[in-house]
Amino acid sequence: MASLDSALIAIERACGTGSVIRDPSLLEGYAHDESEVEPCMPEAVVRASSTADVSAVMKAAYEHEIPVTPRGGGTGRVGGSVPVPGGIVLAFERMNAIEGIDKSELTTRVQPGVITGDLKRATEEEQLFYPPDPNSRDSCAIGGNLAANAGGPRAFKYGVTREYVMGMDVVMADGTILKLGRETKKGVTGYDLTSLMVGSEGTLGIVTEATLRLIPAPEATVTALACFSSLDEVAPVVSSLVAQGQLPSCIELLDQEAIRIVRPEAGLTIPNDTKAMLLIELDGEEASLEAELERTGNILFDLDALEVLVAQSSGERERLWASRRELSYSLKRHAKNKFSEDVVVPRTKMAELLGYCAQLAEQHELVVPTYGHAGDGNLHVNFLWNEPDEKRQVDAAIEALFQRVIELRGTLSGEHGIGVLKAPYLSMEQSPALIALQEKIKDVFDPKHILNPGKIFPADAKRFHGSC
Amino acid sequence: MASLDSALIAIERACGTGSVIRDPSLLEGYAHDESEVEPCMPEAVVRASSTADVSAVMKAAYEHEIPVTPRGGGTGRVGGSVPVPGGIVLAFERMNAIEGIDKSELTTRVQPGVITGDLKRATEEEQLFYPPDPNSRDSCAIGGNLAANAGGPRAFKYGVTREYVMGMDVVMADGTILKLGRETKKGVTGYDLTSLMVGSEGTLGIVTEATLRLIPAPEATVTALACFSSLDEVAPVVSSLVAQGQLPSCIELLDQEAIRIVRPEAGLTIPNDTKAMLLIELDGEEASLEAELERTGNILFDLDALEVLVAQSSGERERLWASRRELSYSLKRHAKNKFSEDVVVPRTKMAELLGYCAQLAEQHELVVPTYGHAGDGNLHVNFLWNEPDEKRQVDAAIEALFQRVIELRGTLSGEHGIGVLKAPYLSMEQSPALIALQEKIKDVFDPKHILNPGKIFPADAKRFHGSC
Repeated sequence: MASLDSALIAIERACGTGSVIRDPSLLEGYAHDESEVEPCMPEAVVRASSTADVSAVMKAAYEHEIPVTPRGGGTGRVGGSVPVPGGIVLAFERMNAIEGIDKSELTTRVQPGVITGDLKRATEEEQLFYPPDPNSRDSCAIGGNLAANAGGPRAFKYGVTREYVMGMDVVMADGTILKLGRETKKGVTGYDLTSLMVGSEGTLGIVTEATLRLIPAPEATVTALACFSSLDEVAPVVSSLVAQGQLPSCIELLDQEAIRIVRPEAGLTIPNDTKAMLLIELDGEEASLEAELERTGNILFDLDALEVLVAQSSGERERLWASRRELSYSLKRHAKNKFSEDVVVPRTKMAELLGYCAQLAEQHELVVPTYGHAGDGNLHVNFLWNEPDEKRQVDAAIEALFQRVIELRGTLSGEHGIGVLKAPYLSMEQSPALIALQEKIKDVFDPKHILNPGKIFPADAKRFHGSC
Repeated sequence: MASLDSALIAIERACGTGSVIRDPSLLEGYAHDESEVEPCMPEAVVRASSTADVSAVMKAAYEHEIPVTPRGGGTGRVGGSVPVPGGIVLAFERMNAIEGIDKSELTTRVQPGVITGDLKRATEEEQLFYPPDPNSRDSCAIGGNLAANAGGPRAFKYGVTREYVMGMDVVMADGTILKLGRETKKGVTGYDLTSLMVGSEGTLGIVTEATLRLIPAPEATVTALACFSSLDEVAPVVSSLVAQGQLPSCIELLDQEAIRIVRPEAGLTIPNDTKAMLLIELDGEEASLEAELERTGNILFDLDALEVLVAQSSGERERLWASRRELSYSLKRHAKNKFSEDVVVPRTKMAELLGYCAQLAEQHELVVPTYGHAGDGNLHVNFLWNEPDEKRQVDAAIEALFQRVIELRGTLSGEHGIGVLKAPYLSMEQSPALIALQEKIKDVFDPKHILNPGKIFPADAKRFHGSC
């Protein structure tokens, strides 16, 4: 405790009065994220204002071996920003500047506390487009998006966060500041540590600034909803659309439960026997969009769509998307507890996975609403429960789900990360040799294991969590 | 030598009779790449036929501490596949299978010896598109493309090799086989070692299979040539096109010297006072392409293009591109020696860099033809010379060029890599702390330093090269 106090004194001296919070009533807000991971009160929260501040925090933490958990918007789904006992939280709400949008370079420079939705709006004003688009876009921060390599619906056409990161300033475990990557689009000078950093969940270093790539905004966008009478019909439709050369900006799946929630909120009039929907968005040149929509519509009807509805106005489109984005929260209101999984299988295996989810729901007597980014085979499978004694059933179902995902050559996480919640399952997907290699890399970056401990690695998660 | 012989006996036993070449007349072909790096005869060449073969080679090499240099097409420009004294070459010409193209998954699975052009043709037959497009596409191999994170003209719109690699099988220094990445498009399970491997120039592990992402082939393509009366006019045109929201598939620059070479080979009729050209390709939906071409043409004329020529047939387009691809070789025929640099600056700094190249040419009395991927600010600056005593001037000019590139916030290599040739300059771009971090990562992957030694790292390059 003496060393914690020494560290905090050094930190407050460097970062300024008011940068260190120790009031328990304020700390509470930093003890959890949006997952079911047990909250853990940090000893303190430090609000950094600059890269130099972050460097000072890490120098003190390194000297005194204090665990540091970086935190963006706190919207994570796997406990990635939940602190560990005796640790501090490094918060980025003060580092929320968009430092410039360059139309000739097609780049922007941002601090990690920038809210993703703010960046999206700022780029749109310049007729530019930053595609990564997590559901929580209006509350999540770019720093968290980098940590989890966030995706979202439009990853189908445009890819995930990593593909938009050109370079970054990073503070290492001992406080050293490094410039990784570059300000040019291309470059192969040394190892790609920028890509390594993206998706590493704050365990290798702390990003304090990033240069992000932008693209020209598409001229026009059109949104269509295809209704189907059975969930079984949907996965083959996705494969078929892709195989016929269609490249929508997204292909989102909504199952019956998801439809039940979205329907009133979006004011949808859809056929009564709709059991599954695909939300399909096309974007591109105005001149070619109508023909493309027609081609897509024809394929959908050929594949037994009950109905294909086209959003007629931007208001209608926005209402539809707003209710889609709310889905995760709406589901949560339906039960006391929710585990939201984030599995991915090859597109052509999605039918099998959906069938298996139905089987799991029946077998374990659970409600398992499923929706997600069908174009990428990335499904959010939700397990809802109310009574504590149901949790065992849920845990068993989740383990069975992961097992099947791996058998189908899939992966445990598409865009949420491993964090605390999925760490116990890592070895289902990765060999001991691969996990050991990653642990050695972690050791190189963070020899004292003070950077976001308890995340990703099974032994680490077991050691740090469950003891709060 | 005894340990080399033991290693080769073990390797031939594992990989089969005829897999190990020791005949000096055959070894010669493996002593060099397409750079000016001093050739170095390997002790042996091993032609692997499978991942198991590669694993056996590495096990033996690890045990006996024999340096191993992997080699794809041998078309590298920085000495990346030039072996070191006492080392062996691991050649991939037998591992050249395209193991399947999946139209529903939009993926292909390839071995590293596949010639890039063969993969491109195979995917085109399925109406799919593998965008990375190095000039040497008909002789370079995918393994080398992965090692150097190859780009090419279409990287402007479509990105570089890394953006198309989903997963890979890798043989580690000690022969361990690891599966990295995934077969799904999205995924954030553990660290992104796939991206780390791409561009690591064979120094971290040996890729023996890769799952690559494909995209639907664009419906139509149109190629235009814009002629300008001065090289100074060209860089602002590129910035302006981009700032006005145009997204061609490529924007290539040709300076006067490049034009002089391309002109007769492509059968071009262009205005006599043309001093620079932009080769611009648009692709997309047939319906919108003409309007887009018109918009681009208007911008070009507004910015003082002398003439904008549109290739009228696919034959004309192919002739144009074939001569563009030959440029590098054609230039080489004009002098005994050529250093082809591969620098990148932010797009808006390109005018300054081109001006500086002209200044360097004058100051050092050199011929410095320049062309390249102007859309990405990636220029191939060529230094030609005939007499040995000119080399000092060339070296001085190159060092000055790099210095200016760094001042302009650029990078030393866009798509060729660091290899041997650029290793002495690495510290101009990267801090000692960043280089040390990468060396530690190298140590984790390759504790005995047997994987392509003498590449990337300054100390390593100095130790191994120049002594052959």
